[in-house]
Amino acid sequence: MSKSIFYHAGCPVCIDAEHDIIDLIGKDNVEIVHLGKSPSRISEAEKSGVKSVPALVTPNGNTLHINFGASIIDVIG
Amino acid sequence: MSKSIFYHAGCPVCIDAEHDIIDLIGKDNVEIVHLGKSPSRISEAEKSGVKSVPALVTPNGNTLHINFGASIIDVIG
Repeated sequence: MSKSIFYHAGCPVCIDAEHDIIDLIGKDNVEIVHLGKSPSRISEAEKSGVKSVPALVTPNGNTLHINFGASIIDVIG
Repeated sequence: MSKSIFYHAGCPVCIDAEHDIIDLIGKDNVEIVHLGKSPSRISEAEKSGVKSVPALVTPNGNTLHINFGASIIDVIG
């Protein structure tokens, strides 16, 4: 795994954070996953330790939760 | 302001996040500020919208709060 993965759910704070993350680390270095549009990725996100969105899973497997966003529970619905 | 600023307070989660941030955006692109060692920077951090640490203030002035770290209130003590 050489790319970071940015998980979000389309909320305004997620979109802002997405733009910041892309500016900071470059869009070629991060995969953007919208969990609302790609619910099949939710279990993968949970396994990576994602507890809220937006979150960035780094290439070394650490999960950085960004801001105080929506709980992943709300995304699962 | 062309660099990001990473504010932290020396807690283990801060140090982990610091390493991740440096790996992701490069150490030349981020200034690391330890608010416990540099309390004179706390008011600047608060003005930038930092509500908890660790937090990253991006070059465009957005503040990304990372993880669910210590409240900045605890740092002020």
